[in-house]
Amino acid sequence: MSVRTKLTIAYLGTDFSGWQRQPKRRSIQGELERALELMTGGIETAVSGAGRTDAGVHAAGQVGHLDLPVEIPSDGLVRGLNGILPDQIRVRDATRVPLSFHARKSARGKLYVYRAAWKQPGLPWLGLRTAVVPPISDEAAIQRAASLLAGQHDVASFTLPDAVTGSTERELYRVTTRSTRNGFEFEFVGNGFLRYQVRRMVGALLELGRGRRELDWFRSLLEKPSPGAPLKTAPARGLTLERVYYRRLPRLVC
Amino acid sequence: MSVRTKLTIAYLGTDFSGWQRQPKRRSIQGELERALELMTGGIETAVSGAGRTDAGVHAAGQVGHLDLPVEIPSDGLVRGLNGILPDQIRVRDATRVPLSFHARKSARGKLYVYRAAWKQPGLPWLGLRTAVVPPISDEAAIQRAASLLAGQHDVASFTLPDAVTGSTERELYRVTTRSTRNGFEFEFVGNGFLRYQVRRMVGALLELGRGRRELDWFRSLLEKPSPGAPLKTAPARGLTLERVYYRRLPRLVC
Repeated sequence: MSVRTKLTIAYLGTDFSGWQRQPKRRSIQGELERALELMTGGIETAVSGAGRTDAGVHAAGQVGHLDLPVEIPSDGLVRGLNGILPDQIRVRDATRVPLSFHARKSARGKLYVYRAAWKQPGLPWLGLRTAVVPPISDEAAIQRAASLLAGQHDVASFTLPDAVTGSTERELYRVTTRSTRNGFEFEFVGNGFLRYQVRRMVGALLELGRGRRELDWFRSLLEKPSPGAPLKTAPARGLTLERVYYRRLPRLVC
Repeated sequence: MSVRTKLTIAYLGTDFSGWQRQPKRRSIQGELERALELMTGGIETAVSGAGRTDAGVHAAGQVGHLDLPVEIPSDGLVRGLNGILPDQIRVRDATRVPLSFHARKSARGKLYVYRAAWKQPGLPWLGLRTAVVPPISDEAAIQRAASLLAGQHDVASFTLPDAVTGSTERELYRVTTRSTRNGFEFEFVGNGFLRYQVRRMVGALLELGRGRRELDWFRSLLEKPSPGAPLKTAPARGLTLERVYYRRLPRLVC
């Protein structure tokens, strides 16, 4: 018999090679699996994530699932793992779930936030999660383009050729943009995201905001989907996976 | 001729051995001085701090001064230093000041915040600046004791024998305590602090809050000052030097 557990995980991704386990590199998945092995006295346990965040990307609510041969009380699992994990990775919650639950396949949506600023934030605990980018002059252009992103699209232009594995159709339920003190913030809620998609969407939107590209160029990225389209990928440090949705449809969360 | 500059510095102290330069260890002062040397092409420049924060302690507004043989525009100094410094240390501001300004001697007060929680914060960027402590049951006891701290006292009980170098009299202008989501926060404004003083005051206050000590015990710490009095020093990770005051008296800042 096997007991399935859903973990909610937060991490400051700065010093990690991303979610995915890799030989000889510090990854979030690798650290979690190592902590589980230590905690269970040597049982190798795979943690399956809702999605693979890239090197330097952060999470406030990444989700993973794992199977254990025995039930460990949730509270003990959270405390035990947090006692072993580095401070930059925190298990926020552990919940027993049915074996039908799958962190990636059961997910109905994800919320990503991208924080950009033209002036480096003075506080390092904020700065570590913010990308410094050239200032924008045309906020309205960003908003017009962002509104084109909502809905179902082939978003292949926002990934790279090597990262394409299946369908490149995705639905974005909500795109929100807002000015912050010395920068700009983007929020994306969608049913799923291709690799690099958020960072490349942000990169393209920022080009528009700087007046270096026109709305037609942005429209053509959606109308003529092409992996590796020439546009800048915004830096990883500005991106945070805030939440993964399982029950309610994200469109109802607005 | 020499040009004096005041720097305002923020840092996440987790991975550093404290403010003070030490051989073979990563210190805030050491990192700043190394960055200045790189930036000036080899000019060794000492950075004199308003106070020495201990290993693991953070700052949102530490202050230091330095002398350079030439004037470097403030903006260039901030950008240049931040380009070299690790992400955990940020120079927030650089201002030219008269040679009479001294980061430590000119300081009229400091504001420290101590963040304690009984449940580890789920978000690492907050958790790294919060100490996990046993829960308290008697908030009123903490408030009664905290009110005794305000004013001029010999606070020797809150330091350790090895750290005593001169007078152990200090004035606390304001002590504020408040409940937070899963914890408790302390704010101290005073004209100066002995080494370990804030962490040992917090350690003593938390003992009262847990009902393990009485108010009379706390009063005797002040009435019979004795370095190294038997009390717990709260963990460094919960402490942040928020601000150093130079112009206005901190009591007027309330």
